Amino acid sequence: MSQMETAMSQPETAMSQPVIGVFDSGFGGLTVLRSLVERLPQAEFVFLGDTARLPYGSKSQRTIARYAAESARFLVEEQGAEYLVIACNTASALALDAIAAAVSVPVMGVIEPGAEAAAAATRSGRVMVIATEATVASHAYAEACARRGVLGLEKACPLLVPLVEEGWIEHPVTEQVVQIYLRELLAEARNGGGNPDALVLGCTHYPLLRGVLERNVPPGVAVIDSAEATAEQVAAAMSERAAGSGQRPAEPKVRCFATDSVAKFERLGSRFLGHAVGRVELVDLGG
Amino acid sequence: MSQMETAMSQPETAMSQPVIGVFDSGFGGLTVLRSLVERLPQAEFVFLGDTARLPYGSKSQRTIARYAAESARFLVEEQGAEYLVIACNTASALALDAIAAAVSVPVMGVIEPGAEAAAAATRSGRVMVIATEATVASHAYAEACARRGVLGLEKACPLLVPLVEEGWIEHPVTEQVVQIYLRELLAEARNGGGNPDALVLGCTHYPLLRGVLERNVPPGVAVIDSAEATAEQVAAAMSERAAGSGQRPAEPKVRCFATDSVAKFERLGSRFLGHAVGRVELVDLGG
Repeated sequence: MSQMETAMSQPETAMSQPVIGVFDSGFGGLTVLRSLVERLPQAEFVFLGDTARLPYGSKSQRTIARYAAESARFLVEEQGAEYLVIACNTASALALDAIAAAVSVPVMGVIEPGAEAAAAATRSGRVMVIATEATVASHAYAEACARRGVLGLEKACPLLVPLVEEGWIEHPVTEQVVQIYLRELLAEARNGGGNPDALVLGCTHYPLLRGVLERNVPPGVAVIDSAEATAEQVAAAMSERAAGSGQRPAEPKVRCFATDSVAKFERLGSRFLGHAVGRVELVDLGG
Repeated sequence: MSQMETAMSQPETAMSQPVIGVFDSGFGGLTVLRSLVERLPQAEFVFLGDTARLPYGSKSQRTIARYAAESARFLVEEQGAEYLVIACNTASALALDAIAAAVSVPVMGVIEPGAEAAAAATRSGRVMVIATEATVASHAYAEACARRGVLGLEKACPLLVPLVEEGWIEHPVTEQVVQIYLRELLAEARNGGGNPDALVLGCTHYPLLRGVLERNVPPGVAVIDSAEATAEQVAAAMSERAAGSGQRPAEPKVRCFATDSVAKFERLGSRFLGHAVGRVELVDLGG
Protein backbone atom coordinates (compact mmCIF):
# COMPACT_ATOMS: atom_id res chain seq x y z
CA MET A 1 0.00 0.00 0.00
CA SER A 2 1.48 3.30 -1.02
CA GLN A 3 0.82 6.41 0.99
CA MET A 4 1.57 8.43 -2.11
CA GLU A 5 -1.50 7.06 -3.77
CA THR A 6 -3.53 8.29 -0.84
CA ALA A 7 -2.03 11.74 -1.20
CA MET A 8 -2.70 11.77 -4.94
CA SER A 9 -6.46 11.71 -4.42
CA GLN A 10 -7.78 15.26 -4.20
CA PRO A 11 -10.41 16.22 -1.66
CA GLU A 12 -13.60 17.35 -3.36
CA THR A 13 -13.86 20.64 -1.50
CA ALA A 14 -11.05 22.39 -3.36
CA MET A 15 -9.93 25.75 -1.96
CA SER A 16 -7.61 28.28 -3.52
CA GLN A 17 -5.20 28.17 -0.58
CA PRO A 18 -4.84 24.67 0.82
CA VAL A 19 -3.55 24.36 4.38
CA ILE A 20 -0.65 21.92 4.47
CA GLY A 21 0.45 20.49 7.79
CA VAL A 22 4.13 19.59 8.06
CA PHE A 23 5.30 17.49 10.97
CA ASP A 24 8.73 16.59 12.32
CA SER A 25 10.03 15.33 15.66
CA GLY A 26 12.37 18.34 15.63
CA PHE A 27 13.06 21.18 13.24
CA GLY A 28 15.08 19.34 10.56
CA GLY A 29 11.81 18.98 8.66
CA LEU A 30 12.00 22.71 7.94
CA THR A 31 14.13 21.68 4.92
CA VAL A 32 11.04 19.88 3.60
CA LEU A 33 8.91 22.93 4.39
CA ARG A 34 11.41 25.09 2.51
CA SER A 35 11.10 22.90 -0.59
CA LEU A 36 7.32 22.91 -0.25
CA VAL A 37 7.13 26.71 0.01
CA GLU A 38 9.26 27.02 -3.14
CA ARG A 39 6.94 24.76 -5.10
CA LEU A 40 3.62 25.82 -3.57
CA PRO A 41 3.98 29.53 -2.79
CA GLN A 42 0.21 29.95 -2.76
CA ALA A 43 -0.38 27.43 0.00
CA GLU A 44 -0.63 28.04 3.72
CA PHE A 45 1.66 25.95 5.92
CA VAL A 46 1.45 24.88 9.55
CA PHE A 47 4.62 23.27 10.88
CA LEU A 48 4.83 21.31 14.14
CA GLY A 49 8.12 20.19 15.68
CA ASP A 50 7.59 17.77 18.56
CA THR A 51 10.78 19.06 20.15
CA ALA A 52 9.80 18.10 23.71
CA ARG A 53 9.82 14.43 22.82
CA LEU A 54 12.67 14.19 20.33
CA PRO A 55 14.61 12.25 19.31
CA TYR A 56 12.12 9.68 18.15
CA GLY A 57 15.03 7.46 17.06
CA SER A 58 15.70 6.05 20.51
CA LYS A 59 12.07 5.21 21.22
CA SER A 60 9.96 2.14 20.53
CA GLN A 61 7.70 1.97 17.48
CA ARG A 62 4.60 2.01 19.68
CA THR A 63 5.70 5.21 21.42
CA ILE A 64 6.70 6.89 18.15
CA ALA A 65 3.34 5.97 16.62
CA ARG A 66 1.47 7.48 19.58
CA TYR A 67 3.49 10.71 19.57
CA ALA A 68 3.20 11.09 15.79
CA ALA A 69 -0.55 10.42 15.82
CA GLU A 70 -1.07 13.04 18.54
CA SER A 71 0.98 15.53 16.54
CA ALA A 72 -0.94 14.75 13.35
CA ARG A 73 -4.28 15.26 15.09
CA PHE A 74 -3.08 18.63 16.41
CA LEU A 75 -2.26 19.77 12.86
CA VAL A 76 -5.49 18.49 11.32
CA GLU A 77 -8.08 19.00 14.06
CA GLU A 78 -6.74 22.13 15.74
CA GLN A 79 -4.89 23.84 12.88
CA GLY A 80 -7.09 22.81 9.96
CA ALA A 81 -4.46 21.02 7.86
CA GLU A 82 -5.99 19.46 4.73
CA TYR A 83 -2.82 17.61 3.74
CA LEU A 84 -0.18 16.19 6.00
CA VAL A 85 3.50 15.84 5.16
CA ILE A 86 5.54 13.76 7.58
CA ALA A 87 8.86 15.57 7.25
CA CYS A 88 10.67 13.13 9.53
CA ASN A 89 12.38 10.00 8.31
CA THR A 90 11.94 8.09 11.58
CA ALA A 91 8.22 8.83 11.81
CA SER A 92 7.80 8.08 8.10
CA ALA A 93 9.61 4.77 8.56
CA LEU A 94 7.82 3.64 11.70
CA ALA A 95 4.50 5.46 12.05
CA LEU A 96 3.03 6.33 8.64
CA ASP A 97 0.18 3.81 8.96
CA ALA A 98 -0.61 4.95 12.51
CA ILE A 99 -0.72 8.57 11.36
CA ALA A 100 -2.92 7.76 8.36
CA ALA A 101 -5.30 5.92 10.70
CA ALA A 102 -5.39 8.85 13.14
CA VAL A 103 -6.49 11.54 10.69
CA SER A 104 -8.88 11.82 7.78
CA VAL A 105 -6.66 13.76 5.37
CA PRO A 106 -4.06 12.48 2.88
CA VAL A 107 -0.68 11.75 4.45
CA MET A 108 2.68 11.66 2.73
CA GLY A 109 6.02 10.62 4.21
CA VAL A 110 9.52 11.34 2.94
CA ILE A 111 10.78 7.82 2.32
CA GLU A 112 8.64 6.73 -0.63
CA PRO A 113 9.33 9.94 -2.60
CA GLY A 114 13.06 9.63 -1.83
CA ALA A 115 13.17 6.03 -2.98
CA GLU A 116 11.11 6.92 -6.06
CA ALA A 117 13.53 9.68 -7.04
CA ALA A 118 16.50 7.38 -6.48
CA ALA A 119 14.94 4.65 -8.61
CA ALA A 120 14.34 7.21 -11.37
CA ALA A 121 17.95 8.41 -11.19
CA THR A 122 19.89 5.15 -11.00
CA ARG A 123 21.09 3.22 -14.03
CA SER A 124 23.17 0.66 -12.16
CA GLY A 125 20.28 -0.26 -9.87
CA ARG A 126 22.44 0.35 -6.79
CA VAL A 127 21.85 3.41 -4.64
CA MET A 128 23.38 4.52 -1.37
CA VAL A 129 21.29 5.93 1.48
CA ILE A 130 22.71 7.92 4.38
CA ALA A 131 20.47 8.44 7.39
CA THR A 132 20.29 8.37 11.18
CA GLU A 133 20.78 5.15 13.12
CA ALA A 134 17.04 4.73 13.72
CA THR A 135 16.11 5.14 10.06
CA VAL A 136 18.83 2.71 8.97
CA ALA A 137 17.78 0.21 11.63
CA SER A 138 14.22 0.28 10.23
CA HIS A 139 15.52 -0.54 6.70
CA ALA A 140 12.60 1.49 5.38
CA TYR A 141 14.68 2.91 2.52
CA ALA A 142 16.11 -0.49 1.54
CA GLU A 143 12.59 -1.90 1.45
CA ALA A 144 11.19 1.04 -0.52
CA CYS A 145 14.07 0.68 -3.00
CA ALA A 146 13.59 -3.09 -3.23
CA ARG A 147 9.92 -2.59 -4.14
CA ARG A 148 11.22 -0.64 -7.14
CA GLY A 149 13.78 -3.30 -8.08
CA VAL A 150 16.68 -1.22 -6.76
CA LEU A 151 19.31 -2.22 -4.22
CA GLY A 152 19.48 0.36 -1.41
CA LEU A 153 22.72 0.31 0.60
CA GLU A 154 22.14 2.11 3.88
CA LYS A 155 24.64 3.70 6.24
CA ALA A 156 24.04 5.42 9.56
CA CYS A 157 25.96 8.71 9.84
CA PRO A 158 25.29 9.75 13.44
CA LEU A 159 27.79 12.63 13.48
CA LEU A 160 26.17 14.60 10.67
CA VAL A 161 23.16 15.89 12.63
CA PRO A 162 25.27 17.24 15.52
CA LEU A 163 27.70 18.82 13.03
CA VAL A 164 24.80 20.61 11.30
CA GLU A 165 23.34 21.70 14.64
CA GLU A 166 26.79 23.00 15.70
CA GLY A 167 26.68 25.11 12.52
CA TRP A 168 29.80 23.50 11.07
CA ILE A 169 28.37 23.37 7.56
CA GLU A 170 31.38 24.41 5.49
CA HIS A 171 34.01 23.23 7.93
CA PRO A 172 37.12 21.08 7.53
CA VAL A 173 35.98 18.69 10.28
CA THR A 174 32.66 18.13 8.54
CA GLU A 175 34.47 17.59 5.23
CA GLN A 176 36.62 14.88 6.84
CA VAL A 177 33.68 13.19 8.54
CA VAL A 178 31.76 13.12 5.24
CA GLN A 179 34.81 11.69 3.47
CA ILE A 180 35.17 8.92 6.08
CA TYR A 181 31.49 7.97 5.94
CA LEU A 182 31.37 8.01 2.13
CA ARG A 183 34.62 6.01 1.85
CA GLU A 184 33.21 3.32 4.16
CA LEU A 185 29.89 3.25 2.34
CA LEU A 186 31.48 3.12 -1.12
CA ALA A 187 33.85 0.33 -0.05
CA GLU A 188 30.90 -1.67 1.21
CA ALA A 189 28.82 -0.92 -1.87
CA ARG A 190 31.58 -1.88 -4.32
CA ASN A 191 32.38 -4.98 -2.30
CA GLY A 192 29.09 -6.45 -3.43
CA GLY A 193 29.90 -5.74 -7.11
CA GLY A 194 28.87 -2.82 -9.28
CA ASN A 195 29.09 0.90 -8.68
CA PRO A 196 26.27 2.80 -6.99
CA ASP A 197 25.27 5.93 -8.91
CA ALA A 198 22.96 7.74 -6.49
CA LEU A 199 23.17 8.94 -2.89
CA VAL A 200 19.89 9.53 -1.05
CA LEU A 201 19.87 12.10 1.78
CA GLY A 202 17.68 10.14 4.18
CA CYS A 203 17.62 12.68 6.98
CA THR A 204 16.07 16.13 6.95
CA HIS A 205 19.26 17.69 8.35
CA TYR A 206 21.41 16.52 5.44
CA PRO A 207 20.26 18.98 2.74
CA LEU A 208 22.34 21.58 4.60
CA LEU A 209 25.39 19.42 3.80
CA ARG A 210 24.50 19.04 0.14
CA GLY A 211 27.49 21.14 -0.94
CA VAL A 212 30.08 19.11 0.95
CA LEU A 213 28.40 15.85 -0.04
CA GLU A 214 28.33 16.74 -3.74
CA ARG A 215 32.02 17.64 -3.61
CA ASN A 216 32.88 14.26 -2.12
CA VAL A 217 30.82 11.71 -4.06
CA PRO A 218 32.54 10.07 -7.05
CA PRO A 219 31.75 11.52 -10.50
CA GLY A 220 28.46 10.24 -11.85
CA VAL A 221 26.80 9.79 -8.46
CA ALA A 222 23.59 11.83 -8.23
CA VAL A 223 22.70 13.34 -4.86
CA ILE A 224 18.98 12.83 -4.18
CA ASP A 225 17.29 14.98 -1.57
CA SER A 226 14.27 13.28 -0.01
CA ALA A 227 12.97 16.68 1.09
CA GLU A 228 12.90 17.95 -2.51
CA ALA A 229 11.50 14.68 -3.83
CA THR A 230 8.71 14.85 -1.27
CA ALA A 231 7.90 18.46 -2.08
CA GLU A 232 7.71 17.56 -5.77
CA GLN A 233 5.29 14.73 -5.03
CA VAL A 234 3.09 17.03 -2.93
CA ALA A 235 3.20 19.73 -5.61
CA ALA A 236 2.26 17.18 -8.27
CA ALA A 237 -0.64 15.97 -6.15
CA MET A 238 -1.92 19.51 -5.95
CA SER A 239 -0.99 20.69 -9.41
CA GLU A 240 -4.55 21.36 -10.52
CA ARG A 241 -5.30 23.47 -7.46
CA ALA A 242 -1.95 25.20 -7.69
CA ALA A 243 -2.45 26.05 -11.37
CA GLY A 244 -5.74 27.77 -10.68
CA SER A 245 -4.80 29.61 -7.55
CA GLY A 246 -3.69 32.95 -8.95
CA GLN A 247 -1.19 35.28 -7.30
CA ARG A 248 1.89 34.40 -5.32
CA PRO A 249 1.70 36.12 -1.94
CA ALA A 250 4.37 38.58 -0.89
CA GLU A 251 5.75 36.12 1.64
CA PRO A 252 4.88 32.53 2.40
CA LYS A 253 2.22 31.97 5.02
CA VAL A 254 3.96 29.79 7.56
CA ARG A 255 3.02 29.25 11.17
CA CYS A 256 5.38 27.24 13.37
CA PHE A 257 4.62 25.35 16.56
CA ALA A 258 6.94 23.40 18.87
CA THR A 259 6.34 21.34 21.99
CA ASP A 260 9.50 22.61 23.73
CA SER A 261 12.78 24.46 23.15
CA VAL A 262 11.16 27.28 21.21
CA ALA A 263 14.29 29.42 21.55
CA LYS A 264 16.54 26.78 19.95
CA PHE A 265 13.95 26.28 17.22
CA GLU A 266 13.90 29.99 16.42
CA ARG A 267 17.69 30.21 16.57
CA LEU A 268 18.54 27.18 14.40
CA GLY A 269 15.40 26.95 12.31
CA SER A 270 16.36 29.69 9.86
CA ARG A 271 19.33 27.62 8.68
CA PHE A 272 16.93 24.91 7.63
CA LEU A 273 14.12 27.09 6.33
CA GLY A 274 16.38 29.53 4.48
CA HIS A 275 14.83 32.60 6.10
CA ALA A 276 13.78 33.66 9.59
CA VAL A 277 11.32 31.27 11.22
CA GLY A 278 9.53 34.09 12.99
CA ARG A 279 7.70 33.53 16.23
CA VAL A 280 7.36 29.87 17.20
CA GLU A 281 4.30 29.08 19.31
CA LEU A 282 4.61 26.62 22.19
CA VAL A 283 2.04 23.83 22.28
CA ASP A 284 1.56 21.17 24.96
CA LEU A 285 0.67 17.71 23.64
CA GLY A 286 1.13 16.06 27.05
CA GLY A 287 3.63 13.55 28.48
CA MET B 1 22.00 23.52 50.97
CA SER B 2 24.52 20.90 49.96
CA GLN B 3 23.41 17.44 48.87
CA MET B 4 26.85 16.17 49.86
CA GLU B 5 26.11 16.87 53.48
CA THR B 6 23.01 14.74 53.17
CA ALA B 7 25.02 11.92 51.70
CA MET B 8 27.67 12.22 54.40
CA SER B 9 25.24 11.23 57.13
CA GLN B 10 25.27 7.46 57.58
CA PRO B 11 22.05 5.52 58.02
CA GLU B 12 21.98 3.81 61.38
CA THR B 13 21.22 0.34 60.00
CA ALA B 14 24.71 -0.35 58.66
CA MET B 15 25.07 -3.41 56.44
CA SER B 16 28.23 -5.05 55.17
CA GLN B 17 27.20 -4.72 51.51
CA PRO B 18 25.34 -1.50 50.88
CA VAL B 19 23.17 -1.33 47.79
CA ILE B 20 24.04 1.78 45.80
CA GLY B 21 21.62 2.99 43.15
CA VAL B 22 23.18 4.82 40.21
CA PHE B 23 20.96 6.75 37.85
CA ASP B 24 21.52 8.36 34.46
CA SER B 25 19.25 9.47 31.64
CA GLY B 26 21.38 7.24 29.37
CA PHE B 27 24.40 5.04 29.85
CA GLY B 28 27.14 7.69 30.12
CA GLY B 29 26.75 7.40 33.90
CA LEU B 30 28.44 4.02 33.64
CA THR B 31 31.71 5.99 33.90
CA VAL B 32 30.57 7.03 37.38
CA LEU B 33 29.59 3.44 38.15
CA ARG B 34 33.04 2.32 36.99
CA SER B 35 34.74 4.73 39.39
CA LEU B 36 32.39 3.65 42.19
CA VAL B 37 33.11 -0.05 41.62
CA GLU B 38 36.86 0.64 41.77
CA ARG B 39 36.52 2.41 45.11
CA LEU B 40 33.77 0.31 46.67
CA PRO B 41 34.34 -3.22 45.39
CA GLN B 42 32.38 -4.65 48.30
CA ALA B 43 29.19 -2.80 47.46
CA GLU B 44 26.26 -3.95 45.36
CA PHE B 45 25.22 -1.63 42.53
CA VAL B 46 21.96 -1.14 40.68
CA PHE B 47 22.21 1.07 37.61
CA LEU B 48 19.23 2.57 35.79
CA GLY B 49 19.51 4.31 32.44
CA ASP B 50 16.28 6.09 31.48
CA THR B 51 17.12 5.51 27.82
CA ALA B 52 13.51 5.69 26.63
CA ARG B 53 13.24 9.31 27.66
CA LEU B 54 16.72 10.65 26.91
CA PRO B 55 18.05 13.15 26.27
CA TYR B 56 16.90 15.09 29.31
CA GLY B 57 18.77 18.12 27.96
CA SER B 58 16.02 19.21 25.59
CA LYS B 59 13.23 18.92 28.14
CA SER B 60 11.79 21.36 30.66
CA GLN B 61 12.94 21.31 34.27
CA ARG B 62 9.51 20.13 35.43
CA THR B 63 9.59 17.15 33.06
CA ILE B 64 13.16 16.26 33.98
CA ALA B 65 12.29 16.43 37.68
CA ARG B 66 9.34 14.09 37.19
CA TYR B 67 11.33 11.57 35.14
CA ALA B 68 14.26 11.62 37.56
CA ALA B 69 12.00 11.23 40.61
CA GLU B 70 10.27 8.23 39.02
CA SER B 71 13.64 6.68 38.23
CA ALA B 72 14.92 7.33 41.76
CA ARG B 73 11.84 5.70 43.28
CA PHE B 74 12.35 2.64 41.08
CA LEU B 75 15.92 2.25 42.37
CA VAL B 76 15.02 2.79 46.03
CA GLU B 77 11.57 1.24 46.37
CA GLU B 78 11.83 -1.62 43.87
CA GLN B 79 15.56 -2.35 43.87
CA GLY B 80 16.40 -1.58 47.49
CA ALA B 81 19.01 1.13 46.90
CA GLU B 82 20.24 2.63 50.20
CA TYR B 83 22.27 5.39 48.55
CA LEU B 84 21.53 7.16 45.33
CA VAL B 85 24.12 8.60 42.98
CA ILE B 86 22.76 10.84 40.21
CA ALA B 87 25.34 10.06 37.53
CA CYS B 88 23.87 12.56 35.09
CA ASN B 89 24.92 16.16 34.91
CA THR B 90 21.58 17.43 33.59
CA ALA B 91 19.56 15.68 36.29
CA SER B 92 22.07 16.79 38.94
CA ALA B 93 21.80 20.36 37.70
CA LEU B 94 18.02 20.52 37.41
CA ALA B 95 16.42 17.84 39.56
CA LEU B 96 18.53 17.07 42.63
CA ASP B 97 16.06 18.64 45.05
CA ALA B 98 13.12 16.87 43.40
CA ILE B 99 14.94 13.54 43.65
CA ALA B 100 15.90 14.12 47.28
CA ALA B 101 12.24 14.90 48.03
CA ALA B 102 11.05 11.75 46.24
CA VAL B 103 13.13 9.22 48.18
CA SER B 104 14.18 8.69 51.78
CA VAL B 105 17.84 7.79 51.19
CA PRO B 106 20.89 10.05 50.79
CA VAL B 107 21.29 11.47 47.29
CA MET B 108 24.49 12.69 45.67
CA GLY B 109 24.86 14.40 42.31
CA VAL B 110 27.98 14.84 40.19
CA ILE B 111 28.21 18.62 40.07
CA GLU B 112 29.07 19.48 43.66
CA PRO B 113 31.88 16.88 43.85
CA GLY B 114 33.21 18.08 40.48
CA ALA B 115 33.22 21.70 41.60
CA GLU B 116 34.77 20.70 44.94
CA ALA B 117 37.62 18.87 43.21
CA ALA B 118 38.17 21.80 40.85
CA ALA B 119 38.27 24.25 43.75
CA ALA B 120 40.83 22.04 45.50
CA ALA B 121 43.00 21.85 42.37
CA THR B 122 43.02 25.47 41.19
CA ARG B 123 45.56 28.03 42.32
CA SER B 124 44.52 30.78 39.91
CA GLY B 125 40.88 30.57 41.00
CA ARG B 126 39.79 30.16 37.37
CA VAL B 127 38.59 26.80 36.11
CA MET B 128 37.14 25.73 32.78
CA VAL B 129 34.13 23.42 32.53
CA ILE B 130 33.14 21.53 29.40
CA ALA B 131 29.66 20.01 29.31
CA THR B 132 26.55 19.51 27.21
CA GLU B 133 24.41 22.44 26.12
CA ALA B 134 21.78 21.73 28.78
CA THR B 135 24.28 21.59 31.63
CA VAL B 136 25.98 24.79 30.48
CA ALA B 137 22.61 26.53 30.08
CA SER B 138 21.79 25.68 33.72
CA HIS B 139 25.08 27.29 34.90
CA ALA B 140 25.07 24.74 37.72
CA TYR B 141 28.87 24.35 37.57
CA ALA B 142 29.50 28.10 37.51
CA GLU B 143 27.25 28.49 40.55
CA ALA B 144 28.85 25.57 42.41
CA CYS B 145 32.28 27.05 41.64
CA ALA B 146 31.19 30.53 42.72
CA ARG B 147 30.04 29.17 46.10
CA ARG B 148 33.65 28.08 46.57
CA GLY B 149 35.08 31.44 45.48
CA VAL B 150 36.18 30.08 42.11
CA LEU B 151 35.34 31.42 38.67
CA GLY B 152 33.93 28.63 36.48
CA LEU B 153 34.07 29.29 32.73
CA GLU B 154 31.65 26.96 30.97
CA LYS B 155 31.59 25.82 27.36
CA ALA B 156 29.09 23.56 25.63
CA CYS B 157 30.79 20.92 23.47
CA PRO B 158 27.85 19.25 21.71
CA LEU B 159 29.97 17.18 19.30
CA LEU B 160 31.84 15.24 21.98
CA VAL B 161 29.00 12.92 23.01
CA PRO B 162 28.23 11.82 19.43
CA LEU B 163 31.96 11.32 18.78
CA VAL B 164 32.23 9.07 21.84
CA GLU B 165 29.09 7.18 20.85
CA GLU B 166 30.48 6.72 17.32
CA GLY B 167 33.51 5.11 18.98
CA TRP B 168 35.93 7.71 17.61
CA ILE B 169 37.89 7.92 20.86
CA GLU B 170 41.46 8.07 19.55
CA HIS B 171 40.63 9.56 16.19
CA PRO B 172 42.08 12.50 14.24
CA VAL B 173 38.62 14.09 13.86
CA THR B 174 38.03 13.96 17.61
CA GLU B 175 41.51 15.42 18.21
CA GLN B 176 40.66 18.36 15.93
CA VAL B 177 37.25 18.94 17.50
CA VAL B 178 38.80 18.93 20.97
CA GLN B 179 41.48 21.37 19.82
CA ILE B 180 38.87 23.73 18.38
CA TYR B 181 36.70 23.66 21.51
CA LEU B 182 39.68 24.11 23.86
CA ARG B 183 41.13 26.94 21.75
CA GLU B 184 37.80 28.80 21.87
CA LEU B 185 37.41 28.20 25.60
CA LEU B 186 40.99 29.24 26.42
CA ALA B 187 40.68 32.39 24.31
CA GLU B 188 37.53 33.34 26.18
CA ALA B 189 39.06 32.44 29.54
CA ARG B 190 42.25 34.47 28.95
CA ASN B 191 40.24 37.35 27.56
CA GLY B 192 38.95 37.99 31.05
CA GLY B 193 42.50 38.05 32.50
CA GLY B 194 44.43 35.27 34.20
CA ASN B 195 45.07 31.71 33.14
CA PRO B 196 42.71 28.90 34.09
CA ASP B 197 44.52 25.91 35.57
CA ALA B 198 41.83 23.23 35.71
CA LEU B 199 39.42 21.66 33.22
CA VAL B 200 36.32 19.95 34.63
CA LEU B 201 34.77 17.12 32.59
CA GLY B 202 31.14 18.07 33.18
CA CYS B 203 29.57 15.23 31.22
CA THR B 204 29.68 11.52 31.96
CA HIS B 205 30.75 10.74 28.39
CA TYR B 206 33.90 12.83 28.59
CA PRO B 207 36.08 10.55 30.75
CA LEU B 208 36.46 8.39 27.62
CA LEU B 209 38.17 11.38 25.99
CA ARG B 210 40.47 12.01 28.93
CA GLY B 211 43.54 10.98 26.91
CA VAL B 212 42.90 13.36 24.02
CA LEU B 213 41.88 16.15 26.41
CA GLU B 214 45.03 15.78 28.54
CA ARG B 215 47.18 15.92 25.40
CA ASN B 216 45.55 19.17 24.33
CA VAL B 217 45.28 21.29 27.47
CA PRO B 218 48.14 23.72 28.13
CA PRO B 219 50.83 22.60 30.59
CA GLY B 220 49.76 23.10 34.18
CA VAL B 221 46.03 22.61 33.55
CA ALA B 222 44.66 19.75 35.66
CA VAL B 223 41.90 17.62 34.14
CA ILE B 224 39.18 16.98 36.74
CA ASP B 225 36.78 14.11 36.22
CA SER B 226 33.42 14.70 37.92
CA ALA B 227 32.77 10.95 37.79
CA GLU B 228 35.90 10.21 39.82
CA ALA B 229 35.31 13.11 42.18
CA THR B 230 31.78 11.84 42.84
CA ALA B 231 32.96 8.29 43.44
CA GLU B 232 35.53 9.59 45.92
CA GLN B 233 32.85 11.51 47.79
CA VAL B 234 30.60 8.46 47.96
CA ALA B 235 33.50 6.27 49.08
CA ALA B 236 34.41 8.80 51.77
CA ALA B 237 30.82 8.88 52.97
CA MET B 238 30.91 5.13 53.34
CA SER B 239 34.47 4.74 54.48
CA GLU B 240 33.55 3.27 57.85
CA ARG B 241 31.32 0.66 56.29
CA ALA B 242 33.83 -0.04 53.54
CA ALA B 243 36.67 -0.49 56.02
CA GLY B 244 34.82 -3.15 57.96
CA SER B 245 33.37 -5.07 55.04
CA GLY B 246 36.01 -7.72 54.53
CA GLN B 247 36.69 -9.45 51.23
CA ARG B 248 36.55 -8.06 47.75
CA PRO B 249 34.24 -10.25 45.66
CA ALA B 250 35.56 -12.00 42.56
CA GLU B 251 33.61 -9.63 40.34
CA PRO B 252 31.57 -6.57 41.12
CA LYS B 253 27.88 -7.08 41.76
CA VAL B 254 26.23 -4.86 39.18
CA ARG B 255 22.71 -5.09 37.85
CA CYS B 256 21.72 -2.82 34.96
CA PHE B 257 18.27 -1.65 33.93
CA ALA B 258 17.20 0.51 31.00
CA THR B 259 13.83 1.89 29.92
CA ASP B 260 14.54 1.30 26.20
CA SER B 261 17.30 0.53 23.69
CA VAL B 262 18.69 -2.36 25.74
CA ALA B 263 20.73 -3.58 22.75
CA LYS B 264 22.52 -0.24 22.31
CA PHE B 265 23.11 -0.10 26.05
CA GLU B 266 24.73 -3.53 26.05
CA ARG B 267 26.75 -2.74 22.93
CA LEU B 268 28.10 0.67 23.98
CA GLY B 269 28.00 0.32 27.74
CA SER B 270 31.20 -1.70 28.04
CA ARG B 271 33.20 1.25 26.71
CA PHE B 272 31.99 3.32 29.62
CA LEU B 273 32.05 0.64 32.30
CA GLY B 274 35.42 -0.80 31.27
CA HIS B 275 34.11 -4.37 31.08
CA ALA B 276 31.07 -6.15 29.67
CA VAL B 277 27.78 -4.76 30.98
CA GLY B 278 26.14 -8.18 30.93
CA ARG B 279 22.44 -8.59 30.54
CA VAL B 280 20.49 -5.31 30.74
CA GLU B 281 16.93 -5.66 32.01
CA LEU B 282 14.16 -3.63 30.42
CA VAL B 283 11.91 -1.68 32.77
CA ASP B 284 8.82 0.36 31.94
CA LEU B 285 8.44 3.60 33.92
CA GLY B 286 5.57 4.87 31.77
CA GLY B 287 5.16 7.68 29.23
